[in-house]
Amino acid sequence: MDGHLENGVVRLGGNARQQFHDSRGYGRPLSGNEIELSRVEAAHLLFRGDLDSVDGLDFRDFFVASTRARDRFGLRFLVYADLRERGFYLSPADNEWPGPADPDADFVVYPRGKTADDGVVEHRVRVVGERESVAAEALAGYVLAVVDEESELTYLDATTPDLPGGTDYDPPASLDGLLVDDRVLVWDAPADLYEHGFYGQPLAGRETDEPAAIQLSLVEAASLVADEVLRLSVAESGDTSEKPRDDTSEGPQDDYAAILARGRAVEGERFDRRLRVYRRLRGDGLVPKTGYKFGADFRTYAEVESVSNLSHSEHLVRVLPASHRFDPRELALDVRLAGGVRKQMVFALVDDGIEWLSVGRVTP
Amino acid sequence: MDGHLENGVVRLGGNARQQFHDSRGYGRPLSGNEIELSRVEAAHLLFRGDLDSVDGLDFRDFFVASTRARDRFGLRFLVYADLRERGFYLSPADNEWPGPADPDADFVVYPRGKTADDGVVEHRVRVVGERESVAAEALAGYVLAVVDEESELTYLDATTPDLPGGTDYDPPASLDGLLVDDRVLVWDAPADLYEHGFYGQPLAGRETDEPAAIQLSLVEAASLVADEVLRLSVAESGDTSEKPRDDTSEGPQDDYAAILARGRAVEGERFDRRLRVYRRLRGDGLVPKTGYKFGADFRTYAEVESVSNLSHSEHLVRVLPASHRFDPRELALDVRLAGGVRKQMVFALVDDGIEWLSVGRVTP
Repeated sequence: MDGHLENGVVRLGGNARQQFHDSRGYGRPLSGNEIELSRVEAAHLLFRGDLDSVDGLDFRDFFVASTRARDRFGLRFLVYADLRERGFYLSPADNEWPGPADPDADFVVYPRGKTADDGVVEHRVRVVGERESVAAEALAGYVLAVVDEESELTYLDATTPDLPGGTDYDPPASLDGLLVDDRVLVWDAPADLYEHGFYGQPLAGRETDEPAAIQLSLVEAASLVADEVLRLSVAESGDTSEKPRDDTSEGPQDDYAAILARGRAVEGERFDRRLRVYRRLRGDGLVPKTGYKFGADFRTYAEVESVSNLSHSEHLVRVLPASHRFDPRELALDVRLAGGVRKQMVFALVDDGIEWLSVGRVTP
Repeated sequence: MDGHLENGVVRLGGNARQQFHDSRGYGRPLSGNEIELSRVEAAHLLFRGDLDSVDGLDFRDFFVASTRARDRFGLRFLVYADLRERGFYLSPADNEWPGPADPDADFVVYPRGKTADDGVVEHRVRVVGERESVAAEALAGYVLAVVDEESELTYLDATTPDLPGGTDYDPPASLDGLLVDDRVLVWDAPADLYEHGFYGQPLAGRETDEPAAIQLSLVEAASLVADEVLRLSVAESGDTSEKPRDDTSEGPQDDYAAILARGRAVEGERFDRRLRVYRRLRGDGLVPKTGYKFGADFRTYAEVESVSNLSHSEHLVRVLPASHRFDPRELALDVRLAGGVRKQMVFALVDDGIEWLSVGRVTP
């Protein structure tokens, strides 16, 4: 059978409707037995040898001509062919094939065994080359089909995560801390602060039920200062003035300004974003701790009753400005690592509010 | 016992030499029974309660005073205390305690059961805060003790890796490829090119022993062009000129210029660096393939006999300019991921030559 290209789509006559559309989900029906195919569908039929030519062009020549005519044709062809091989029917999504156009998707994929006519969409797929960046905002709801430099495919599912928290802990009413460079020392921390609240880290492995020295991270300390629980005094490298230990500042506002200034000095605006995400997570009953060992901002525990009886953390959280664009290679790194340690990778996109995004690898 | 601070070191008299130096490896002997301690050693003895005070200051006050007097004192104290707890004797390395000064190290650590007097060094340790960056060059030979924001420690061992290769494959003398956007199609590739050489990836799962279409990455193609094995024709998105399929360029130089220009257009200077590392690895008998799924530049196979009988890849390679400075969080991400998939993380630092650096997590 031979097709004819017209206005960017390939028309097929004969028994095409029955042979390609009704029984195998290619193209969309026109009048009678005629159907029209997108270039990528036509190329796939040529590739499989089901179609002989399009205006006399064989697969190779049609492929080259389509590459010249349509941006990212090669990438889209690879993904189309792969999803077909996995047993899915799918349609181009950019031009009302057949549902309403979705300018942010390349293909709509139907549930296995279903066709366009069933009106149910399983995945909305966005095709991305390894070297293209992807806006983080409004990514939830799409499957990214990433084509790497060697033309291998990875599918990443972007969803809105559920982050339930059940930790019930109120810090003591009053704590005194010493701001030292980029951390805060609480010399006489009640054992509860660490053991139940999972705030900070005991100094150099000291283990006792008595009040003992705890080191807080800047973000933990800033959050406790914002809650008016922690009061600060300050010691700085190179600061040789003789401030007595109890030279605390004027009040909570001053303390908050001081720790925010310190946070911004060491992390810039990132500190503000991390603090907001930290406080939101704590407010929702989760316990965020540093995600450093996983290259993330936080790992989170849904419910902490005590540190000595801690379950695994469930999420890794990376905090980003809402305007962030993902480099697919960075995304692959985060998602792969999270998968390897059986945690869910979550991105907190911070603007006026916080938008949550989870990305995980899927095998369609 | 009480110590006395003088010129930045703490002097101890009495039976200090016997009690602290000879039997427990603290400080260095002066005349008689006197020893001198660095601030961090003195703070540790105060912390443990083995020393009562330094010029009347208890642990807390000495700690705060030392924080003010010495940059990164808090971080260094944490690492010193941790290594002590792990059973090591160690000395400050910055001030001839006791060996020759190493301005790039913070501590020299002796083998378990050994002291400074044995003259053998197990680790040269560099203390790094999570927020400090570390020069990649000349890092081999050091252990990084990274203190994260919550004061937890991770030890990273930087070494010069061995990258043996045993792949024996010569590509065919002549191949024709079509440069399409950021990859190259070889329509009639001999089966060997993929199956034995592990060049490229078959187009859309076609499996046959006959010559078949192979997609090469830009870096694979550029290397084959440089070897004068591959000749190119070009198809570009939006290029509607009617170039016949066999409109190849003038010769190998032109082809090399064309593919280098394409590589630089999509990756900038990074492409040149990756190409050099790719060619060096191939030249040494390793097979580099894309490391995209691991967020790296390449994964490498030491010895490929055939793709259908492939062993696991041994290394992940990230290509960096030699002037690169590591952010410890990025380093943690790479090292953690590599460890999780049982591969060695290798950095190729590219300047006029290539310096190889491997980083792995260690538990001292």
